[in-house]
Formats: sequence, C-alpha cells, structure tokens
Amino acid sequence: MSSPPALSALIDALRALPGIGPRSAQRLAYHLMQHDRAAAQRLACALQHAVERLRHCARCNTFTEAPLCKTCTDPARDAALLCVVETPADQLILEQTLSYRGLYFVLMGHLNPIDGIGPREIHFERLLKRADDGVVREVILATNFTSESEATAHYLGQLLKARGLTTTRLARGVPLGAELEYTDPGTVARALLDRRLICDS
Amino acid sequence: MSSPPALSALIDALRALPGIGPRSAQRLAYHLMQHDRAAAQRLACALQHAVERLRHCARCNTFTEAPLCKTCTDPARDAALLCVVETPADQLILEQTLSYRGLYFVLMGHLNPIDGIGPREIHFERLLKRADDGVVREVILATNFTSESEATAHYLGQLLKARGLTTTRLARGVPLGAELEYTDPGTVARALLDRRLICDS
Ligand SMILES: [Zn+2]
Ligand SMILES: [Zn+2]
Repeated sequence: MSSPPALSALIDALRALPGIGPRSAQRLAYHLMQHDRAAAQRLACALQHAVERLRHCARCNTFTEAPLCKTCTDPARDAALLCVVETPADQLILEQTLSYRGLYFVLMGHLNPIDGIGPREIHFERLLKRADDGVVREVILATNFTSESEATAHYLGQLLKARGLTTTRLARGVPLGAELEYTDPGTVARALLDRRLICDS
Repeated sequence: MSSPPALSALIDALRALPGIGPRSAQRLAYHLMQHDRAAAQRLACALQHAVERLRHCARCNTFTEAPLCKTCTDPARDAALLCVVETPADQLILEQTLSYRGLYFVLMGHLNPIDGIGPREIHFERLLKRADDGVVREVILATNFTSESEATAHYLGQLLKARGLTTTRLARGVPLGAELEYTDPGTVARALLDRRLICDS
C-alpha cells in the first residue's frame, strides 16, 4: 500500500520547507486536504505569484515587484544616509521607529560560513558599489547583535572604512524599560563601556 | 513602507497553516524567495495538483485519485474484516505489520467536541452503512489510545454493537522491548487486567 502520487508529492514538497520534518509535513498535508482546501489553494496561488512577481530592488536589494522599491524611489528620503539591514523585517522595525529617513541596503542574510553564506551570497560587492555612489555620506550598520551578525558588521565595516566611508553601528546598551538586575551582564558591561556624558540641557 | 503585495499575500497564506505563527511565516517566505524558489514552485504545483486530484475513496474514505483506492479494489483482501483507523498514516503502520489482510475505514480524525468535530465530521453514518454491508463480520477499532480517540472508539463501539456487529479493539499492554520499571503505571495496570493464560504449546 502506498499514498496516491498527488499526496506523496505534497508531503515531499512540504518537507522541503525549513523546520518542517516528515511528521509535520504529513500532518499538514492531511490537514489541508481534509479541512482546508481553500487555504491550500490560496497558498498555491500565493507561491506562484510570489515566484513570478518578486524580484530584488536594483538599488537596495529588498523584495519588490517593480525594478526599484517604493523606499528607493521616495524623493523625501535622505540619500546621504544608507542603513544596512539583514532582512525586510529588520527594515520594517527601523521604519516603525519613525526616526530614520535615509535609504537602505538589505543583505538578505548574514555571513554564515558553515552554511556556505559568504560575502558573495550577501552581495558585499553590490553594497560597496552602492555606498560608493558619491552621495552616501554615512553607512549605518544595523545588523543584529548575535555573533554571526556582529562578525558580518565587523567585516563590512572594514571594507567600508577602507573606502573612506563614515561607518557607524547601532548603539548597544540596556533596553528601554529594562531593570539592571534582569539584564545580562554582557549587556550591562557594554553599556558601562559606552556610557554617555550627561549634558546640561 | 509596506511589503510588496505578492510578498504580503505569501506571508498571509503561510500563516494560515496550523502551527505556523507570524514570525515563522515571514521567515519561510523570505527563505523561499531568497534561497529556494524551486522549492516554492514545487510546493505551488504540489498543492494545486493535490487540490485538483485528491478525493476520498467512496468505500474507505482515505485519500485517492481514483473513485476507489488501491486497497479497496484489491481482490486478495478479506472483506469480512474492517479496520477503523484515524488517518492514512495509521493505516500505513498497520500495513507495515504485515499481519492484517482485511479492509479499512479511515475516519480522518477523532471526536473532538471543543474543535467542533462531531460524529458527522468523522463520517459515522458512512462507516455504519459500510460495516452493515452483510459481508463484514468483524470491525476492529484501531484508533489511538489518547483520551479523545478512546472516547471515539467507545462511542463507535456502542453504535456498531447495537447493529449486531462483532466489534474489537487493539489490545493495550506493555510495548515490545519495554522494561516494566520505565513503563507508566496505567499501562502496567491495563496489562495486568488483560493478562493472558499461557498455553502449553
Ligand atoms: Zn530599494
Ligand atoms: Zn478505499
């Protein structure tokens, strides 16, 4: 006895997704076919459309349906500032701060030698060319603060500084609303090292 | 700033899958679009084909592409035995034992009043009609041994016995290779209650 081919193919295709094992794939397939064919149909169409329509912005590398994304074509943006983020989600968070009006470059990942993600895979050459356009005055490295992302920022920083570009990194410190007692010592140590002079105003 | 429509639609469609939250949906979408468009394309096709081709076997209710599944149309099967399972995966396990040659009925679930899964949703009427064909002599209830599946077996057993059908349940007991010390007391209690007389042979 074996599953019908259309069911086996669906289970196999679901298993190819990261984080979905054979049991989950089987359960997902049964669930969709038994209880939610509309969701299966919607997902099929969404995948198809995404594959057909999504490309990378020629300027900032984020996902877009046009040659350039909305942010890159916004004349109100300050083209002298370039913020480097890992994912479109990180870019969204920065936008939500309402305190940045420059442009972005989206790496779509970070250096990860074990998974074979090197400088080429995250488009260092394109970023360097982009930052070297003569308009950009400062590159803000807003990668995450995990070890791999810190390494990515460090490596990128070296390359950018070698080209004479002002390169900054998001400040590390104690999060807003945090109690020192419950903050990890590494973060407190960093905040101590980066302490700021209190101004009079 | 907002995501391009094709990306937002993909994230929404992935979020509709059980067990996939907003963050996982976002990561899956980025991953597929960034690193594995071939997998996205395969999944789109597999979903489309599954939705178009998979139906339920008119006899046993499992997924099939033909009106009747391969098992139901196999003349070597003993039509006097009908085994009731919850899912096609459970049926596969029983087949792998190589010790059952009867037919099946696949409930595609179990009673779950909280989720609104009642006797109608798991096709009790169809099962009763199927078991009442005059050929079936014994109905083996092979649902799981969790509380909801036990309740399902109990309820089904009442209905089948009321129709004069011989109804059995898979034996409960100590699993093969298990050590009593590490077996839960409920299982040992059941094994004690269901103890078998040792034959001479
Ligand atoms: Zn752009
Ligand atoms: Zn069948």
